[in-house]
Order: sequence, then structure tokens, then C-alpha cells
Amino acid sequence: MAKKNPESSSVPALQGDGRRRAVIGAVTPQVDDGRFAVKRVVGDVVEIEADCFADGHDVLACRVRFRREDDRTWCEAAMTALGNDRWRGTFTVDELGRYRYGVCAWVDPFLTWRHDFARRIDADDLRIAARTGADFMAAAASRARGEHRRRLTEASRKLREATELDVLRHLALDEEVGILAAQYPDRRHESTYPVEFPLVVDRERAQFSSWYELFPRSMGAPDTHGTLRDCEACLPYVAKMGFDVLYLPPIHPIGRERRKGKNNTLLASEDDFGSPWAIGAREGGHKAIHPQLGTLTDVRSLVAAARSHGLELALDIAFQCAPDHPYVESHPEWFRHRADGSIQYAENPPKKYQDIYPFDFESVQWQALWEELASVFAFWAREGVRIFRVDNPHTKPFAFWEWAIARIKQEHPDVIFLAEAFTRPKVMHRLAKLGFTQSYTYFTWRNTKQELTEYFTELMAAPGRDYFRPNCWPNTPDILPESLQVGGRPVFMARLVLAATLAGNYGIYGPAYELLEYAPREHGGEEYANSEKYELRRWDLDRPDSLAPFIARVNAARREHPSLQRGQLAFVATDNDELISYARVDAASGDVILVVVNLDPHHPQSGWVSLDLAALGLEPERPFQVHDLLSDAHYVWNGPRNFVLLDPAQAPAHILHVRKPLRTEHDFDYFL
Amino acid sequence: MAKKNPESSSVPALQGDGRRRAVIGAVTPQVDDGRFAVKRVVGDVVEIEADCFADGHDVLACRVRFRREDDRTWCEAAMTALGNDRWRGTFTVDELGRYRYGVCAWVDPFLTWRHDFARRIDADDLRIAARTGADFMAAAASRARGEHRRRLTEASRKLREATELDVLRHLALDEEVGILAAQYPDRRHESTYPVEFPLVVDRERAQFSSWYELFPRSMGAPDTHGTLRDCEACLPYVAKMGFDVLYLPPIHPIGRERRKGKNNTLLASEDDFGSPWAIGAREGGHKAIHPQLGTLTDVRSLVAAARSHGLELALDIAFQCAPDHPYVESHPEWFRHRADGSIQYAENPPKKYQDIYPFDFESVQWQALWEELASVFAFWAREGVRIFRVDNPHTKPFAFWEWAIARIKQEHPDVIFLAEAFTRPKVMHRLAKLGFTQSYTYFTWRNTKQELTEYFTELMAAPGRDYFRPNCWPNTPDILPESLQVGGRPVFMARLVLAATLAGNYGIYGPAYELLEYAPREHGGEEYANSEKYELRRWDLDRPDSLAPFIARVNAARREHPSLQRGQLAFVATDNDELISYARVDAASGDVILVVVNLDPHHPQSGWVSLDLAALGLEPERPFQVHDLLSDAHYVWNGPRNFVLLDPAQAPAHILHVRKPLRTEHDFDYFL
Repeated sequence: MAKKNPESSSVPALQGDGRRRAVIGAVTPQVDDGRFAVKRVVGDVVEIEADCFADGHDVLACRVRFRREDDRTWCEAAMTALGNDRWRGTFTVDELGRYRYGVCAWVDPFLTWRHDFARRIDADDLRIAARTGADFMAAAASRARGEHRRRLTEASRKLREATELDVLRHLALDEEVGILAAQYPDRRHESTYPVEFPLVVDRERAQFSSWYELFPRSMGAPDTHGTLRDCEACLPYVAKMGFDVLYLPPIHPIGRERRKGKNNTLLASEDDFGSPWAIGAREGGHKAIHPQLGTLTDVRSLVAAARSHGLELALDIAFQCAPDHPYVESHPEWFRHRADGSIQYAENPPKKYQDIYPFDFESVQWQALWEELASVFAFWAREGVRIFRVDNPHTKPFAFWEWAIARIKQEHPDVIFLAEAFTRPKVMHRLAKLGFTQSYTYFTWRNTKQELTEYFTELMAAPGRDYFRPNCWPNTPDILPESLQVGGRPVFMARLVLAATLAGNYGIYGPAYELLEYAPREHGGEEYANSEKYELRRWDLDRPDSLAPFIARVNAARREHPSLQRGQLAFVATDNDELISYARVDAASGDVILVVVNLDPHHPQSGWVSLDLAALGLEPERPFQVHDLLSDAHYVWNGPRNFVLLDPAQAPAHILHVRKPLRTEHDFDYFL
Repeated sequence: MAKKNPESSSVPALQGDGRRRAVIGAVTPQVDDGRFAVKRVVGDVVEIEADCFADGHDVLACRVRFRREDDRTWCEAAMTALGNDRWRGTFTVDELGRYRYGVCAWVDPFLTWRHDFARRIDADDLRIAARTGADFMAAAASRARGEHRRRLTEASRKLREATELDVLRHLALDEEVGILAAQYPDRRHESTYPVEFPLVVDRERAQFSSWYELFPRSMGAPDTHGTLRDCEACLPYVAKMGFDVLYLPPIHPIGRERRKGKNNTLLASEDDFGSPWAIGAREGGHKAIHPQLGTLTDVRSLVAAARSHGLELALDIAFQCAPDHPYVESHPEWFRHRADGSIQYAENPPKKYQDIYPFDFESVQWQALWEELASVFAFWAREGVRIFRVDNPHTKPFAFWEWAIARIKQEHPDVIFLAEAFTRPKVMHRLAKLGFTQSYTYFTWRNTKQELTEYFTELMAAPGRDYFRPNCWPNTPDILPESLQVGGRPVFMARLVLAATLAGNYGIYGPAYELLEYAPREHGGEEYANSEKYELRRWDLDRPDSLAPFIARVNAARREHPSLQRGQLAFVATDNDELISYARVDAASGDVILVVVNLDPHHPQSGWVSLDLAALGLEPERPFQVHDLLSDAHYVWNGPRNFVLLDPAQAPAHILHVRKPLRTEHDFDYFL
């Protein structure tokens, strides 16, 4: 039988706010109606829009309000009407951390009166309305102070005393008095949108970063295990290429139990070094350093040395344990146990990963587990690390990440978390929503013009663009995509240009990338042959065919051009499907970059690029210069359609800086 | 200085729900994240979708839950995975009133175990996993009762005791046991979407109704003021045309002060009857009946007589007062006062409407005003009226309507409110969201194929389709659209067919419509010349050129064809812009109607109609019959492209019932 539920009456209560006539809706940007934060970086102008309207034809006043989350006081900025009941207001975020924003609106009796007054004709009407106006001005005066109060009181008195129609009209519609009175509005019946939308402000590097991943153990002298000190010695090499984030795979002790051998073989031999992601041994776990790599002092030294080269250290946090990780003994309750009492290793039946123990987040001791894992980030943050690349976050509960990231950022709002989640789209989006600063993407497998255009168009769409910051990787230690296996040098160049110019954040796994490493472990697979994940590699960084100088040019273009850092992406039509083209436009600086890439590594491709000149800030009638930042060549282009020929044997891409129109004879003033 | 706000910590609390690994989002349908109700009618199958997923690869169970709003007990229905982490579940609403629905999901350990078990190969693994499975079955047994508990206990015991791999596999994956155990899931870590979405279930007429508006005072004998009794005498005429709602303009006493004369002239003469929308005089206000129309007894009689003709009475509720409305004296505080002490009449400077006093919803006594206005609906509802056409709701506060409609529907869930808001799109949508059952539309001014296609495509889009029920009117007493002024009989026929077949709800203002009244008061205006709003009219209902028989055919088609009542609308391509075509398809009954209208009233137009045969449930290889419900002609069509010729001099439209494919020789079984 149906039980009556007295709380869920559908009739709104007849209380207090019946005279709030303004309604507010469809506030943008927003993520899931304020459940998650919108992301911006320091210095951004945040543009808020909302539908605001009231019954009837009275005049509305709308404001966007905003505050730091830990500050009770709201700031306000006026919103202006865009038409069709849509309003827009902006504010600038100049501090790191969490903000809130919202929208309020009210039917403004003074503005309504003034709007109507200006349209009145009848003399009696004008006289009666003037008296009402004088009352409104007096009321505004009562809300003002000092000089403003004096002036409004005076304006009210004059309007009340005036009798001549012309004088009365002049006084009532006086522009200065109007602006002044509007500053002291009657907000008794103000409506406030019920959601206080969260906003996270990160530092600039959250949206613009160039990552270089390397295995420190491969950086030593021949036949020796490299160290963090060796890594430090590589900094000039990495910095010269123009990267700003140096990212290291896990630097912790590597498990010995069930250690994997070279090329992921099941049994390691004595001289195998194991995978850095098999974390933990008797020397320690996630807060310890692999003895062969160095010490905490070496980490501190590396952080400082990197900084002096314009590089920031990023650590890899992988929440999983080797069987000999100290947690296994000290906290067996953090792991799942099989019916035979053994600890459950990672598996995806029938596949088994017996060298890895996943944490059991359904453990009775889940709170202690959460606290301990969060303390790992806190530990490294205290050592000066401010960027974490998080391994497989999609295999740990979403609620944990939301809590852990908020907790770390509360103390260190400058921390950046990159989610290494190559998984289903909604899972990747959820991780970005709940707090990850940057996200790995499907770029790694998007090769054709159509694939790239569709994917980046999707990434630019709301609300994703407000929380999902793509970080594009053409390769990783786990992924040697098929395109790199077969396309040779032109593909390595093209994929690098695409990654570096389609998104603000990108990275490569080197030196495998610049040294054109292309051999897979097995045909049809994406694992590197002789992967550094399981063995030391020797890299000849001075090889003449290295892409390092090319990469340096691409990164230089990124550093010099604000449009490649934060510019709007717009695809540009070409008449050849092997040629992809897009513009990056930074409205604030006026900087414009046009990229054209030949996706065919084997043949020269040519075609016509059709520009939207107005969108690029160009006049249709005047020729303009484009400067290829890769080849340093200059071209004069004219009109919207321009010819491009790209020979992959030389360079598969243009990164064209679009320059101001050339001077013509019309620029001279012949009549001086 | 910034004040710390301790309540707004951004770190979620480390409490209770850390093991809820399933997340739920993007629930549809929904209106503004549950701020407003989704609308359905009795008998509808409500289809709910949501994104549901968890970390890792464990198996999820998802359910849609629903309840009547006044019932605490949730019902549940299983959801099934559609791919890409999208799930769908359905339930049927079989009662009037308000419901709530939501979604819950959990990582199901038993289903995960079963999924993994089926993929295991290793014998040791299978044996160990079987023991875990036996535990899960025992746990399910502990949540079950009676026979189910017995069977699950038995299954658990057998699995635990089995040793042979084959037996073990058989017992673990037994289909019946699997289904049974899944009925008693471990829901300790269940996630529930935080919003309980509201749903309003109306009666069928909310989505399918045919309105006929008439002025009772014009229904009398020549030169006499018509009465409600005269109106009763007209019922057979209206019923014969196939309408099911008889809608009357306000039936209240008409103000005498500042009464308007014929054609809206400023001063009425002695024998002018005034506008029914100038409500209230010494005889009473919104709860009284104009003495010249009759008495409350006559209203009751009309309600009953209408019902016997299959018609339902709809009253017009216009919340505004003539200067001599009793409220003006008894409740001067419900009106705005000018600075000279007089009551503020309606105005939109410089225009004045001195015969109308609007209510002041910002009155100090707003609560009493709200109560009184709501009591007007309640009064007429008590007299058996269940449909209200609300005049200009957009000039009264949204909050008032939300409260008033909820209040009336709480007592009378079968009441239908039609919003007469011809205003800006977002205002119209807000009124529909907050509770109006049906809404007037821009159909009245949408004439071309492109205009109609765009507008109805917009109306079909989510979320509008879930709360905005269009009611299409080709004319109203206020609006004689330009098309009807110049297009003659073919336009009246075409516009009627469009209104009656594009939407479930439509209406006409008659007899002006069927008698082809086309003269405007002034060139360029939309007011009728000699409008019934200000004077009595005599209508010759038996005129041979009346459209009444044509209208009857159109309404008969609507009554006989479920697709015209609730079928999905899909536009159909034609190669002639003067020919618009669309299908209405009712999936449940298989009923399909195809409409083709010639929008050119002056010339025959022909062209090819391109059908999506599969969408209409037709086989590509077989001819099919279409039956024109207007002309009674039958055509045999074949394949997707078919020729249509419509001569406006005869009939500007086809309403084609698409019939099952014709029999062919292949249907005979020669081999019997």
C-alpha cells in the first residue's frame, strides 16, 4: 500500500520570495549543473552567460557574482543583454585555487521607470510619473552615502519641484543621475541562481606544457645502470629541444618477486632490472627511491637543476604493488585475498599479471588506504614535485581521486595531475571532471584527416572543453602506434607537429622518439621491441638523423606564439584529404598560426588551402605574408585560396606564422 | 579582507561512501537537472537512460527506480547496457499525478565473479574461484527467503563440494542459479543518482485534443445576445466537426467603466457589449457569470451536455480587471497606484489600456492575491471544468503559476492548463516547464516549408519535447494571420491540415474559421474587422462554402489514427519547396500517416516525395497502398520515390494512411 510522504509535496510553499520575478537559467560554462568545476588558468577572463528574464516588460538588471571559495564575500560584475534573453558578464581570475561563481538578477523598478518615462507623451502622465521618479531617486539616495547620497537627494528634490515639462523631462532623464541611481538599486526582490558553480584556477602550465619522458636508468655510462645524477647531466639536452616538463617513470624500488624479464618474459634472469611499474621491495615502496637510481638528495638536486634549465620534474604515481612491496606485509587488509588465502594478483581472465598486486579499494580499511595513498602525493610535493603523471587512474575508484586531488590541491593549488587513462570516453571524461588537470587522449591512434578533425572538434565542444585538457602523445613506453612502425621519419615529424600544434599540452617518450625507434616486439602489436620498460637501453643522442633539432624548432614556435599556447583551434578546408590544415588564433594578442601537414609519408602532396580571412584578422583585398617557422621560408599569399606543396622527404609540415598585411602603395599618403 | 568560509571546503569528506564505485550521470529525460518535471500521459512507457560505469572492469548492475511522489516506496526496473556505458530501463505510468524517478547502480560482485569464471582456464584458478562463488551464492541465499533461499543454499553447497573440473564449471555457470542469485544482489555499495527527477502524468487529452473556440453571445437568435443555452444548442454542430474541446472566452460580467466600443474604439456606445476580457462589474468578477449569458446552473448544464456530445468545456482565465471589478474596491492593495492616487491601468508607454487594471504582484498583500487567484481555478474546477486556457500568463510572475498550477493539480490532477503566451521563446518554455500542460506556438506565423520544418524540428528536440506540448492555432480572435487574409479557401484548408497533423493538440477560432472570415480591421494588421471581441456577430453556419465538412474529415482522421494522436513526426523530403511532407508513425500500433500539403494556394504543385521506407515499416521491394483520408482515393505506390500532384482548387493536401503492402503472387503458397 502506498505510504504518504509528507515531505515531498509538489506545491511550492507560499513564502518569502513570491515577489522575486526574475528567473535565471542555462548558466554557462558549467559542468553537470555545478557538480564539477570548470577549469581556467591564472589571468583568464571568465565569460559567464545566462538566460535571464521576468514576466511582463519591466527592465531587468543582471550580475555575475564570483568569489574565492574560501572567501564569503561575493564580487559582482554587470551583465549585458545579448538578445533573446541571454546575458553575458566577465571577470578575471588572478589567483590559483578554487572559486565559485553565480548569477543574480532582479526587476529594476528605477530602470523600468526611466525606460517608460522616455516614451511617455501625455503631459499629465509625465507629471505623475515624475513624482514616482523623484521617489525612486530618494530611495536610491537612502541606499547611497556621502557625495552620491547628496547628489541623488538633490536630483530627487529638483524633479519633485519641477513643473515645466521640458525641465521635468530633462531632470528625469539626466544621464549622470540615471547612472548614479542605478548604482544603488532596489534589490529586495532579487533572484539568485541556486547553484554556486565551482571553478578551479590552475597555473599556466596546466594548459600549456611540453613533456619529455625518459628512463633515468638508460642515461648512464655504457653497461651501467643510470642514476638520477646521470639524468641531471641530460638536462641541457632536453632543455635544448625546448621541453619544459621532464617526466620520469616510477623511481621507486622495483620488486624482485615474480619480476618480469626482458621483453616482458615471465621469468627474469639475475641481471634483469625489472619494470619500474612493479613498485616496492624490501628497500621501500612509493615513498622510497630505487637504490640504483640514487637518493632523496638526488631528487632534490634534480628538481633544482631542472628548474635552472627551465624544466619541471614530473613523477609517475602508479598505485599498485610488487609482491614484495612493504605494504603487502604491513597492510595485508589493503589487498584482496583469494579463497586459498593468497593475495589476489592483477588479472583479466584468462590473463594474469602475477607480478602486480592491485589495492582493494573495497577493503574494510579503505579510509586508511586512501589516507596512505594521498600521503604519497604529499610526500613528493614536499620534495618540490608539482607535476604527477598518474598511472591507470581508471582502475581506482573515482571517489578516491576526487578526494585525493582536492586534498592535495588544497595545500598545493599549483599541483598538476595528468591522467594516464587510455580507456572508454566517458571514463576519461569523468576523471577530467573530478579533478585531473590534464588527460591523455586518443590522439595516439587518430591518423587520418577525418579522424583528427572529428576528434579535435569533439574535444573543443562544451562542456568538455571546460574541464578536459588534452595532452597529446604520439608515443609512450607502452604504445608504439602502427603509424610510427611503418611510416619512417616523415611520420615521426608529422605526428610531432600535430601533437605540438593541435593542443596546448603534448609530450613524447624519448629518446625513442627523436631517434626514430620503430620496431615492435611483435608484428601487429604496439609494444616496443626491447622495451625500456624491462631493460636498460643505450641511446646515441648525437646521431645525425636525430629529430632533436626539428623538435627544437617546433617547441620554439610553441614558446614564441601565444596562439599555440592558448589560441582557438579552427580547422581549415583543403581540397586534398592527405593535407590537414588548421589555424590557431589568439584573440588577445592577435597572434595567428596556420598549420598544414602532409599525412602521406610516402609522396609529395599538394592542394589548395581555403582560409576564412576575416577569422584570421586579414583583409580580403590585401596580400599577406606567411613565415614557415620550420623551414624559415617566407611566402606572400593573397586571398582566401592558397597553394601548398609538402614533400615528406624534406618536411611534411608547415607551421606558418601569419603576418600583418604587406604594405602597398595605398599606404603612402600621396596628398601630404 | 577575505573571510574564511569553513562550510565550503572543496575536499569531500572521507566518510561512509568511499566504496561506492559506480557513478551515474547524464540521466535522460530530464528538465534542468530535475528542477522541472518531465511530462507524460497515462499509459505511457517511460524510457530512462543514463551513463553508468565504474572503475576497472567489474560488472555493473543498474536499475531505474520510480514511485508516485506521495508514496515512499520505490519500484525498480532493470536497465540494460546499450554500449558506450549507456544504460536504458523503462516503466509504465498508469495513474494521473506526480511521480519521481531516478537511477541506481552498483558494482556487482557476483556478476563479476561469474563473468570472470567463464573465462578462466587454469584448473587451480577454477577451483579457488569456485570457492569464492560458493560464498557469493551463500550470501545471496542469506538475502533470499523460502524456496529461493533453499535453492541458493543448495547451489552453494554443491559448488563447494564439487571437485571434478567439469562438474564445477557446470555448477558455477548454471544459468538458473545465476539468474536466481542475481535477484538477491549485494547492494551495500550501491550508488544512487542524487536527483529524484519529477514526472507529471496527465490524461490522454493533454497530448491529443481538438479545440473549437466560440463566443456564446454570437450564438443567439438574430439581434439578441446569445446565452450559454444557445451555446448548448450549438454542441451538435461542433461535435459533428469532430472537436473534443469547446473553449469559451471569459464568461464573466463585463466592465462598464471605460468600456471599448466596436472595433476597439475608445468610447463604447450604449448598445456596445464590451470585451469579455474586460472582466468584472457590479454583478461580480472572476467567479461570476455575465447575466446576459446565464447562470451557474447553465454552466453546469453546458458542461454535462458537452460531455454527452464527446466535448469538454474549456474556460478562459484572464487575471485582469475592469475598473469596476469588485476587487478594485474590496482589495485596492492588489493594484498599483499612481503618484496621484489613481489606480495604474495597463500601459506600454506611450500606449494605454485604461479599461484594464493589471494586478500588482509586488503588492505587500501578494500572498492573499495568490490565494484569491488560485481560488478562481478551484471555483470552476468544482463546477466540473477541467480545462483552462490561461490568458497572457507571461505578464504574471512565473513563481505564481508554478505554485498555482501545482496547487490545483494536487487536488485535480486531471486539470489541463493551456498557456496563451505568444511571446519570446524562453518565456514560453519557462511557462511550459513550470507546469502549463499545453502551449500556444509560433505555428500561427510559420508558413513556408522551411519555417515549418525548422520550427517543428525544434519542438521535437530534447529537452523541450519532454515538457512543451504544442497546441497549434491557425487563427484566434486576436490573430487573423496575413496568410489567411490573402490566400482564400485553399489556405484555410492547408493551414487546418497542418495544425491538425503536425501536433497532437490544435484548435481553431470558429465559426470565423470554417466560414473563411478573412478581412482585417486595417491593412497590415492582424485584428479581425468587426471582431467578435467587441460586438455580437451573426454566423450562417449552413453556408454551402463552409469548411465544416472538410474539418470533420480531418478530425475523423485524427480520431481514427493513433499516429496522429501520439506518433513520432518525421519530415519527408520533396523536390518542390511548395510541397511539404511528413510522416507520423506510432510504433506501438504500427499506424502510419503520411501528410503532403501544397503551400501554394494559387497553383497546382507537383513533385516527388522521397520516403524512408524502413522507418515507415515498409519493405523496399513491395508496392504498398496509400489511402487519402480527405478524398477517399486509393493509390498504389512503389519504392521510396512517389509522385504527388495537389491542385489547391480541389484539395491542397493529402492525409494518406499508409497501408500494409499489397498481396503479390509470392504470398500464395503454391506448394501446399
